[in-house]
Amino acid sequence: MGKTIAFILLPLILITTSCVKKVEEEPPRKAGFGLVVHGGAGYINPGTFSPQKKKLYINKLKEAIAKGSGVLANGGTALDAVETVINILEDSPLFNAGKGAVFTAEGTNELDASIMDGKTLNAGAVAGVKHIKNPISLARLVMEKSPHVMLSGEGAEAFAKEQGIELVDNKYFFTEERWNYYQKVKKEKMKNETAGINLNSGQKFGTVGCVALDKNGNLAAGTSTGGMTFKRFGRIGDSPVIGAGTYANNNTCAISCTGHGEFFIRNVVAYDISALMEYKGLSLNKAAGKVVLDKLVKAGGDGGIIGIDKYGNIAMPFNTKSMFRGFSLNGQEPVIKIFKGG
Amino acid sequence: MGKTIAFILLPLILITTSCVKKVEEEPPRKAGFGLVVHGGAGYINPGTFSPQKKKLYINKLKEAIAKGSGVLANGGTALDAVETVINILEDSPLFNAGKGAVFTAEGTNELDASIMDGKTLNAGAVAGVKHIKNPISLARLVMEKSPHVMLSGEGAEAFAKEQGIELVDNKYFFTEERWNYYQKVKKEKMKNETAGINLNSGQKFGTVGCVALDKNGNLAAGTSTGGMTFKRFGRIGDSPVIGAGTYANNNTCAISCTGHGEFFIRNVVAYDISALMEYKGLSLNKAAGKVVLDKLVKAGGDGGIIGIDKYGNIAMPFNTKSMFRGFSLNGQEPVIKIFKGG
Repeated sequence: MGKTIAFILLPLILITTSCVKKVEEEPPRKAGFGLVVHGGAGYINPGTFSPQKKKLYINKLKEAIAKGSGVLANGGTALDAVETVINILEDSPLFNAGKGAVFTAEGTNELDASIMDGKTLNAGAVAGVKHIKNPISLARLVMEKSPHVMLSGEGAEAFAKEQGIELVDNKYFFTEERWNYYQKVKKEKMKNETAGINLNSGQKFGTVGCVALDKNGNLAAGTSTGGMTFKRFGRIGDSPVIGAGTYANNNTCAISCTGHGEFFIRNVVAYDISALMEYKGLSLNKAAGKVVLDKLVKAGGDGGIIGIDKYGNIAMPFNTKSMFRGFSLNGQEPVIKIFKGG
Repeated sequence: MGKTIAFILLPLILITTSCVKKVEEEPPRKAGFGLVVHGGAGYINPGTFSPQKKKLYINKLKEAIAKGSGVLANGGTALDAVETVINILEDSPLFNAGKGAVFTAEGTNELDASIMDGKTLNAGAVAGVKHIKNPISLARLVMEKSPHVMLSGEGAEAFAKEQGIELVDNKYFFTEERWNYYQKVKKEKMKNETAGINLNSGQKFGTVGCVALDKNGNLAAGTSTGGMTFKRFGRIGDSPVIGAGTYANNNTCAISCTGHGEFFIRNVVAYDISALMEYKGLSLNKAAGKVVLDKLVKAGGDGGIIGIDKYGNIAMPFNTKSMFRGFSLNGQEPVIKIFKGG
């Protein structure tokens, strides 16, 4: 009789516990405030990356993270921290955003950016702007001062003028390094018309992004980019697409993406991570890993993401060789990493 | 002893069955092939909508659905059916897409469209085109003939030229009805500068869309629109945004949206329905209802969606007064509805 009961009970208990395990407990709050930053995923080789150049990148990322962290430490909003950080990276020629934007197939610069407020789900984005020094700030104005989410091209620039934003000459975005790279790609392209999109797999992408959690528990995410070198003019990547390149929701996480934008759009990457957390109860780390290291890899989409959740947990997975990235939690010293190991 | 066993067993059995219930069985295939079409959600009053006009809409929707259904019946792809249906609605002045596009604040016409292949997750979109008679066909060319997903403005039109698409004069999109409505909105706007976005709540939106399931079990979705009357030029709504206005995935469903685009972008509506099906095991009907009748209503986002899943189940929820919609399954006679009752 005792054996019979055990026979009946054991499988039931096993099923029951395996079932109950799925309901995850709310994890303890990891950080009161913090932020994560990326300067683009890509294919930099540790061997050929000069120490001088490495130092430039590390210092600029540290500067941006320290400024953003200061905003949060002083009780500033996650949105303010995100904008502050991205402004600094946009003003640097090191990254493919703002000043350092890459060139389109036609030899011009077209910039995209988006920002999202996890508290309200408000969002703003600009696509294909040519005369905006800080596209992330214009994206924020679209969010806060227009009834729209996404403005493109001349329409976005007309709105910028109305808002008192000074337009800069497209030449502002000229940097010798990007121009030389553009010329190189152009030559290769002329040699091999079919090379097309694969030309990009050898370069770093360089998009910048920031996600932040403020002292009030609010999340925000922002992304800014010059797009792909030799992109067709008018091409819109994932960076200004809410749900693809940028997403923030106080209930789940804030995400900013970098990589081969077309794959990020088709896979709705930023929102997919949030959905896996909300609907399947995955942790930020597991959800981000599932999307970047499994789904995107299977689809052939190169890149990475940064994320922070409402508890201050962070994630920075990427499926390329390198991703400029760093973080600071609770106002601590910024930590910067570039390659897989660090 | 018997009682003790029952005491232990009963709660365990209850937990176990409530747990097992969540794993839904694959429902029987409802239709071998079929499609659903919308001609926009809005605020048409049954009382003021003339029988003559109603007949025009019903006949045009029937014509489009019958043509698309014929494509599927003959073994054509879901993508072909979606493009065929939307071309017919784009060529009609009745809908806010193609020929019947509404006017921007500047009195011009700017069109958006997107299409997605549920088999491959390939997608194509165009935003802010002014000289393309059938934006959905250009979106398909972007998907099939370019390495990009989303092209905007003049860049999209340069690509169209390369592909041999004839550009039309922007005047092609002039229709007296839309122009009169634009003038009316302009007057009201001048009277009340703060009216802004609310001007749109009184109009029908008129975006068109189609989702289809073909005989091979492949899903596709497409959406085409002239946007909001009096939208700021350069504004991009949800229609060309993959994940927001359009999404298709053979594993879940195909979705096309219509409504106040800003809310659809912020809520990643089309992909959210797919995610609720994939990650929470909801049926298409429950997932679509949750998003359109609960989440969007709470957010204040007016509109509706059409969807079809891999089993041929369909959904057509909307939270406005009206939505032009219809469907045909297995080649049967098209069914058309406009208001809540039908």
